[in-house]
Amino acid sequence: MRKHVSAPLPIARTVADLRSAIAAERNNSRTTGLIPTMGALHEGHLSLVRAAKQRCGFVVATLFVNPKQFAPHEDFDRYPRNEAGDADLLASAGCDLLYAPGRSVMYPDGFATSVLVSNVSTMLEGQMRPHFFGGVATVVTKLLLQALPDAAFFGEKDYQQLLVIRQLTRDLDIPVEIVGCPTVRERDGLALSSRNAYLSAAERRVASRLNVVLHDAIKALRAGAPVDAVEGEASRHLAAAGFTSVDYVAVRNAATLQPVASLAEPARILAAAWLGKTRLIDNMAV
Amino acid sequence: MRKHVSAPLPIARTVADLRSAIAAERNNSRTTGLIPTMGALHEGHLSLVRAAKQRCGFVVATLFVNPKQFAPHEDFDRYPRNEAGDADLLASAGCDLLYAPGRSVMYPDGFATSVLVSNVSTMLEGQMRPHFFGGVATVVTKLLLQALPDAAFFGEKDYQQLLVIRQLTRDLDIPVEIVGCPTVRERDGLALSSRNAYLSAAERRVASRLNVVLHDAIKALRAGAPVDAVEGEASRHLAAAGFTSVDYVAVRNAATLQPVASLAEPARILAAAWLGKTRLIDNMAV
Repeated sequence: MRKHVSAPLPIARTVADLRSAIAAERNNSRTTGLIPTMGALHEGHLSLVRAAKQRCGFVVATLFVNPKQFAPHEDFDRYPRNEAGDADLLASAGCDLLYAPGRSVMYPDGFATSVLVSNVSTMLEGQMRPHFFGGVATVVTKLLLQALPDAAFFGEKDYQQLLVIRQLTRDLDIPVEIVGCPTVRERDGLALSSRNAYLSAAERRVASRLNVVLHDAIKALRAGAPVDAVEGEASRHLAAAGFTSVDYVAVRNAATLQPVASLAEPARILAAAWLGKTRLIDNMAV
Repeated sequence: MRKHVSAPLPIARTVADLRSAIAAERNNSRTTGLIPTMGALHEGHLSLVRAAKQRCGFVVATLFVNPKQFAPHEDFDRYPRNEAGDADLLASAGCDLLYAPGRSVMYPDGFATSVLVSNVSTMLEGQMRPHFFGGVATVVTKLLLQALPDAAFFGEKDYQQLLVIRQLTRDLDIPVEIVGCPTVRERDGLALSSRNAYLSAAERRVASRLNVVLHDAIKALRAGAPVDAVEGEASRHLAAAGFTSVDYVAVRNAATLQPVASLAEPARILAAAWLGKTRLIDNMAV
């Protein structure tokens, strides 16, 4: 296996360059793993690079802050950007190529197509951020078709996004394996997120309660408490812990995200809550 | 070049079978040309097969009557179906493989994704048949991604559809060349269409006026008549010729289908009109 720790990471800016790099590796019988990111990389992303490196000979990370998945009032402009730092982190984790297309490569003048996923994208995040999954589905479809990798790696941190991507990949017959990887957490259990960088010290202390409240909720569910009661209790605990507001705490079917009647079906607990202007999400298997 | 005139045409029913047939040809350095159809084949489709055979070593026609591009009141149930006859015609034209997936292959339980094209799909056919291009864009995306051919061939008869397919292919970065082929016509100029089979003898005689009226309109435009006047005159001529109703006669920019101010830009004249329960379309370069 090649290492790029000391050499700078090669960067492709166009679809043609991306495809020719991947074709060259394929001609050498190396499979390709793709890791779509919006940059602002952290250990969670790097864990995806390492997982890809385990399975694929050639690992490509993408960096594109996708305007289509931000609403006008959201944080597109202040979203953290540091391509050089990201490239160094990727190289250190064993990534072989960074694909960082400009906006005109992804959305040239006259761009007019969107990919929409119904069912699994309509509730929770889809309800709170109606533009979001349309933007994600379209850009992920493009990245998958630009690279046509053997496998693509996504974190379970964005659990609903992972389900949306599995759905569109299956429905559109994109020939790629979608691999979900476990959420990486800080020592106090806070799920790593690029948006954690927005938190003040005081908010950061409150943020660590999110995963604790979800763990407590799972305990209560396993002890037989009714789903409704547990969801309500968890929301109240988050507010009491100092969260500014709670978008949802929901126990759902792990495959469909439909409400669950009992724990007889595989379930997932998902939450979204605000700390000032920062929105945090987390989820766990029940 | 191989011929299958006497041998029955091989038929693939699953994505796996389709992909393995194409992969085998690709391993022998043969390129693949794809011709999506809804069956009910005529000389227009066969001209696409021949065009594909000119450019590609391996030619695959698909046959799937796509329910998503029919509205509930449209002719999905009575749409002509004759797979065995279609297979014979395809073989005689040099086609190498028929891909005829069942509905559960194309739209398995839980199918939830759609591809939507704005701009070029919103007017004309998109306005008269609001469900239509969503269904077309989704199924064509699927067929292109199932086969990943080098080129795909579509008739100019469905001119707006051709533009929609070019747009989605470009926007989603599907690695395929879209080839548009000229409309094939009867001796009296009627554009070949599977729906011509619905026409009574009397309707068939009226139908032949559609292309004549469009030719006359082009002459008038070239002679300097204003676009609005020509469109209105052509509609009146169709009604006078016996068409039951006229959905539109429109002179549009040939690339964007936006209204044209003058013939300084490349223009196309497009029309849709009814004969009883049968809807005919046609178009020509101006």
